[in-house]
Amino acid sequence: MIGRAMDGYVVVVDKSTVPIGTTERVASIIKQKTSLPFDVASNPEFLREGRAIFDFLHPSRIILGSDSPRAIEAMQKMYAHLDCPKIAMNPRSAELTKYAANAFLATKISFINEIAHLCEVIDADVDMVAEGIGLDPRIGKQFLKAGLGWGGSCFPKDVWALSKLGESVSLPLPVVNAAITTNRSSRLRIVDRLSGVLGDLAGKTVAILGLAFKDDTDDTRESPAIDIARELGRRGAIVRAYDPVARVTFEQMGFEFVQASDPYEAARSALATVLATEWDEFRTLDLSRLKIVMAGEVLMDARNLLKPDEVRAQGFKYMCVGKK
Amino acid sequence: MIGRAMDGYVVVVDKSTVPIGTTERVASIIKQKTSLPFDVASNPEFLREGRAIFDFLHPSRIILGSDSPRAIEAMQKMYAHLDCPKIAMNPRSAELTKYAANAFLATKISFINEIAHLCEVIDADVDMVAEGIGLDPRIGKQFLKAGLGWGGSCFPKDVWALSKLGESVSLPLPVVNAAITTNRSSRLRIVDRLSGVLGDLAGKTVAILGLAFKDDTDDTRESPAIDIARELGRRGAIVRAYDPVARVTFEQMGFEFVQASDPYEAARSALATVLATEWDEFRTLDLSRLKIVMAGEVLMDARNLLKPDEVRAQGFKYMCVGKK
Repeated sequence: MIGRAMDGYVVVVDKSTVPIGTTERVASIIKQKTSLPFDVASNPEFLREGRAIFDFLHPSRIILGSDSPRAIEAMQKMYAHLDCPKIAMNPRSAELTKYAANAFLATKISFINEIAHLCEVIDADVDMVAEGIGLDPRIGKQFLKAGLGWGGSCFPKDVWALSKLGESVSLPLPVVNAAITTNRSSRLRIVDRLSGVLGDLAGKTVAILGLAFKDDTDDTRESPAIDIARELGRRGAIVRAYDPVARVTFEQMGFEFVQASDPYEAARSALATVLATEWDEFRTLDLSRLKIVMAGEVLMDARNLLKPDEVRAQGFKYMCVGKK
Repeated sequence: MIGRAMDGYVVVVDKSTVPIGTTERVASIIKQKTSLPFDVASNPEFLREGRAIFDFLHPSRIILGSDSPRAIEAMQKMYAHLDCPKIAMNPRSAELTKYAANAFLATKISFINEIAHLCEVIDADVDMVAEGIGLDPRIGKQFLKAGLGWGGSCFPKDVWALSKLGESVSLPLPVVNAAITTNRSSRLRIVDRLSGVLGDLAGKTVAILGLAFKDDTDDTRESPAIDIARELGRRGAIVRAYDPVARVTFEQMGFEFVQASDPYEAARSALATVLATEWDEFRTLDLSRLKIVMAGEVLMDARNLLKPDEVRAQGFKYMCVGKK
């Protein structure tokens, strides 16, 4: 289609996250339909969910993936108004840069979650350790928040694709694969810890507050909350859930569960409540009301949102990630 | 000894990297010898080899590991002249912070080396990918230099200790362990790639330029160069080595090899020369002289020190890390 619509030199810019080699494949397809000069370039975007417009206008860098000086020059002009480094590289390097950036950030989160799990056992405090290492400018504070790991539509997809790319060329990527392993275990560990205090979970009621993979979105793709709910279901627990905006069908979840209209309704008769998404409204939960509606006293703050002393003062057995 | 020498309140400060729980153990030992008040604190130092004095005077942060407000206050006073964040935490968190910082930096290096290995196969350029991801402020440019991984006396010891700590509490640390795996394979991969171009290495002469684990030191502990030399020896290659300052005995190396007095003497009759340490003097090697003394044309730049075009112009088959 592009080939047929052309009436002179164009640069076809691919901003999507695409498999390595896509830029070349697109070029060979267009070439079949036109004899006019053109270039295809990879120009991956780095936008955070919920902050796309800001990030588009204030990029930390722009990657110009092309072997053609003419295409590089055209893109330099197009982005002249944006004040940031613009780096030219071959298309495959540009395509890989996007995967590598997301995989590194995912690895950073998995790393601090490993340290968090260790902290739980050796009586250290992961929030202090994260602050202590994050002040090293070679490390940096961001993406060092211990919790339930990475989810949503970008990180899991890209990290998994990178891992598969390695496999496909007989080059397993140990660190990338380990980031995936730890991300999965960060979720299952929550259920194991619940089981550690409640015993066999079969027939026991557990409330989950939050279903979205992060706050301020209804996106439940690869959501830690869903993984925790499913594992609870698999072990026979009765799951009652609440999320301010996200909705999950029984089909999506894979088993029957209650979707309550408020946190207290979700927590009714629960032996344990799991705080699984960092929604702001959970920071100001009425803890005394929550305690009254529950049948048990376990509050698992899997996002480290609450103040431990305040929770314990209400008679809860408070548990969180990365500290005793 | 400290207990007996005390004549009033003291804070015993441990600046070393020590196993988790050491601060408490030191306190219980001192307590047996004195009835005077005292505190033991963990205050790990973050000094780079070769830059210790600068780093001591310009720390990025100071970790004050104690549960005693009196000890924290005394250390705050002691460090009042240093302008950086000072973070109080419990001793175990402080002890862990040092291990976690080194393990994260080691993981960062292993990550980029994994990406480098992938780049070699899919025809991307790891230096461009590293620049592309390093400009993300959540990632940062430092410790993203692909090459032979981390060595020396600190990183290997600390990363290994953290891995063993995890094992000892039945909590394997996948990302940390993967960083170790990739670090080892970054070295062996060089020998595999040599074998890919030279075939069976038995009886073939290979020169190694550099024995120290990094430049400006004679430290060969956990040096990549030594691992490469040993693997070459294991496969029956004849190894000729040169380092400006580091010396290695046959006993340390485990097999007979030639230690030459200059790079050209080391490269004499070699089918391949491996550049294994980033000594400045290797940047200005007389490539035409090197080519003349060698019997083959493979130059493996395992530190990405040289300019590919210049090396190829001398008739070498140039190979480096993370690009074709």
